[in-house]
Amino acid sequence: MSQEELQGYRGEALNALRKANVKIGDLIRITKNGETYEGILIPRSEYGDDKHIVIKIKSGYNIGIRITPETKIEKIGAGAKPSFIAPPPPPKKPELPKVTIVSTGGTIASRVDYRTGAVRPALTASDLYSVVPELSDIAVVDAEILFSLYSENITPKHWSEMAKCAAKFIEKGVDGVVIAHGTDTMGYSAAALSFALQNLPVPVVFVGSQRSADRPSSDAATNLIGAVTAAAYGPFAEVALAMHETISDTSIILHRGTKVRKCHTSRRDTFKSINAKPLARVEDGKVIMLTEDYTERNKERKLVLKPNFDEKVALIKFYPGINPALIDWYVDNGYKGLVLEGTGLGHVGRYCFDSLRRAVKAGLLLAMTSQCIWGRINMNVYDQGRDLLAIGVIPLEDMLPETALVKMMWVFGQTNDLEEAKCLMKMNIAHEYSSRTLYE
Amino acid sequence: MSQEELQGYRGEALNALRKANVKIGDLIRITKNGETYEGILIPRSEYGDDKHIVIKIKSGYNIGIRITPETKIEKIGAGAKPSFIAPPPPPKKPELPKVTIVSTGGTIASRVDYRTGAVRPALTASDLYSVVPELSDIAVVDAEILFSLYSENITPKHWSEMAKCAAKFIEKGVDGVVIAHGTDTMGYSAAALSFALQNLPVPVVFVGSQRSADRPSSDAATNLIGAVTAAAYGPFAEVALAMHETISDTSIILHRGTKVRKCHTSRRDTFKSINAKPLARVEDGKVIMLTEDYTERNKERKLVLKPNFDEKVALIKFYPGINPALIDWYVDNGYKGLVLEGTGLGHVGRYCFDSLRRAVKAGLLLAMTSQCIWGRINMNVYDQGRDLLAIGVIPLEDMLPETALVKMMWVFGQTNDLEEAKCLMKMNIAHEYSSRTLYE
Repeated sequence: MSQEELQGYRGEALNALRKANVKIGDLIRITKNGETYEGILIPRSEYGDDKHIVIKIKSGYNIGIRITPETKIEKIGAGAKPSFIAPPPPPKKPELPKVTIVSTGGTIASRVDYRTGAVRPALTASDLYSVVPELSDIAVVDAEILFSLYSENITPKHWSEMAKCAAKFIEKGVDGVVIAHGTDTMGYSAAALSFALQNLPVPVVFVGSQRSADRPSSDAATNLIGAVTAAAYGPFAEVALAMHETISDTSIILHRGTKVRKCHTSRRDTFKSINAKPLARVEDGKVIMLTEDYTERNKERKLVLKPNFDEKVALIKFYPGINPALIDWYVDNGYKGLVLEGTGLGHVGRYCFDSLRRAVKAGLLLAMTSQCIWGRINMNVYDQGRDLLAIGVIPLEDMLPETALVKMMWVFGQTNDLEEAKCLMKMNIAHEYSSRTLYE
Repeated sequence: MSQEELQGYRGEALNALRKANVKIGDLIRITKNGETYEGILIPRSEYGDDKHIVIKIKSGYNIGIRITPETKIEKIGAGAKPSFIAPPPPPKKPELPKVTIVSTGGTIASRVDYRTGAVRPALTASDLYSVVPELSDIAVVDAEILFSLYSENITPKHWSEMAKCAAKFIEKGVDGVVIAHGTDTMGYSAAALSFALQNLPVPVVFVGSQRSADRPSSDAATNLIGAVTAAAYGPFAEVALAMHETISDTSIILHRGTKVRKCHTSRRDTFKSINAKPLARVEDGKVIMLTEDYTERNKERKLVLKPNFDEKVALIKFYPGINPALIDWYVDNGYKGLVLEGTGLGHVGRYCFDSLRRAVKAGLLLAMTSQCIWGRINMNVYDQGRDLLAIGVIPLEDMLPETALVKMMWVFGQTNDLEEAKCLMKMNIAHEYSSRTLYE
């Protein structure tokens, strides 16, 4: 049997399939621990491990089965040609809301193309309907491939492109936009579009997945259904991020783009709203708002697109022994602003003060966030904080360091005037500041 | 009435005290919302706000009362001289375990000297017994002032001094050492001493507070009692950090020095064990171990002191659009190692790869941690991670970025040999790596 006929399989899984004399497209039965699974053998992506076999079961879902020496595999039906494994897309129901899925790459997009087994970090509407047939009951979905990038390769230039692409579809009159994105930097991108897309008429919902679609534990389909539901029916018109609320599949939570952070390397509920309640929950096909303070959907509202970001802004995470010459280096390289990720209530070592003074003198905008992540900056408690305020460092309240960085890049994309930039940094533009809560 | 006689009071509080014609040392009665408080008026530190009056009540505790227009203040007893306000220290009970408290500064230390109202970021045994009289029933406590620093001003040089100071007392035969420290960088210092103090015979317990001792909600006394209890009676011989477990006063939790992080700017339960269970809990005066995997206290064991740290190590938090020339700058400035705080499972943008290759070629040690904070690095899942491994970046599993930085500084304090340094980084020296847990 050629490698082609068992595309993507390696090691133990490949050996077991060869032994059973089956090939991609065959209807097979797998018996393991007294349980029986039947489905069509599908190819794996290059990311797959060498221990699972993936079959497409009757319901249309893919499941992965771990091969052990006791696992029995038998062919029970003839092979279908790989290109025919996926059912044809169901007919669109034109009365449903229109949602465009913009794909930028990442796990959610790169794995759904199980038909060829090839890594295609991209998705088409047809792919989507065949992998997640439920979508056709929710919305008329169209898909656009914008990038095919791992999200760690996304830069502020890509944020601009994403904003323009979302704006294009919004201006065409869609009822919502979903942006499929790698989870690694999805929080940064969601913050970026929160500033770039102002006066939104409809929801813009980022979505990713923590497990590839060819794994039994994949969250790709559930997250996508949640995101499309929110984009189609959510009563809000803001930038949000939809992912698992817990490790179970029962609800999808929508976080505000400016208040969300990836907080676990692998869990499905990795994204958390920080210093804010989540915006909404999708459960049983319904969108439930979790706050009363949101902008309502209104297709009459005219989108204002402000897609520019300036990369001459840096985030400096302070730590004991940090070299203050780092601050000088940014000044000497023409940077316009620095976001400090200080300690506690907003502090950095006194040995950094001279460099900070020099930066202010050179016209840089300095702002303070906390590496604690949770809580609020308060630079009035200790004299060292007050000294930093006197130097000219702006306290950014409860804003996330990552959001502060994105915002400052956006601010210098709008203006080069320092006073205007300060003013914009202090302004609450996209819920990046939460209102002050009671002291514990 | 002179300013001296109401030292430290400002604004509303000062006005109310002047109106009532009372002075520091007077026994006063405060009536507010139908409640009555009696105690000796004590001075405030410069950090105090202008709305609270602080009295020392009969139990020996200080309480702060917020002044409102309805608050009634009356003098009910003559003034004592400030130096006599504090009761004399209770007699030491020589049969109790011996604990030395080493003070480095910070909120916990700087505020306990309420007798003079002056800012003295320092504490003496006598201060401690008078502020926290319970200590005399727990241990024979001695105190040493090592530094008087806000913890954001602490650098690796101070870690060396702390380690040497703790070692000095351990070699003198104390049953435990408590290190009072500002909370801002206490996690970094606790990690540092976890590596610097090897083969410990007794516990070394860091302690801080999130509220000054002159506030009614202060956690200083409770934390100190917990830390001294753990140092005196804890069955473990490791470096730990003792703080409130929750926002209530019922238990003090001990985190391992290498697995702990400050996670809130102001909450009393700000410190959390990350990717690990806490080491122990102090509740009702008892130390309860929360893991079976710990080094037992044994005074026969001979401490090995390795107090050197090399500051030519940097932490780089990756973000979209980061300038890879930053990596070159560290290389050109003679740095020996870089800890990357990457995204997700351990990634950085491909646009940084050239600079990373150059760094490896120049002989730098590169290691990967995750800005997710929770979870474990896995650079085998995506090809971009595998490419980083091929470049020579070492995955640091579930180690905190901050701990990784401290450890690499310590590693280059022990050796300049790259291979030995790599080997030490991979070695589990002080529980900085947790054993692999089940996949969700």
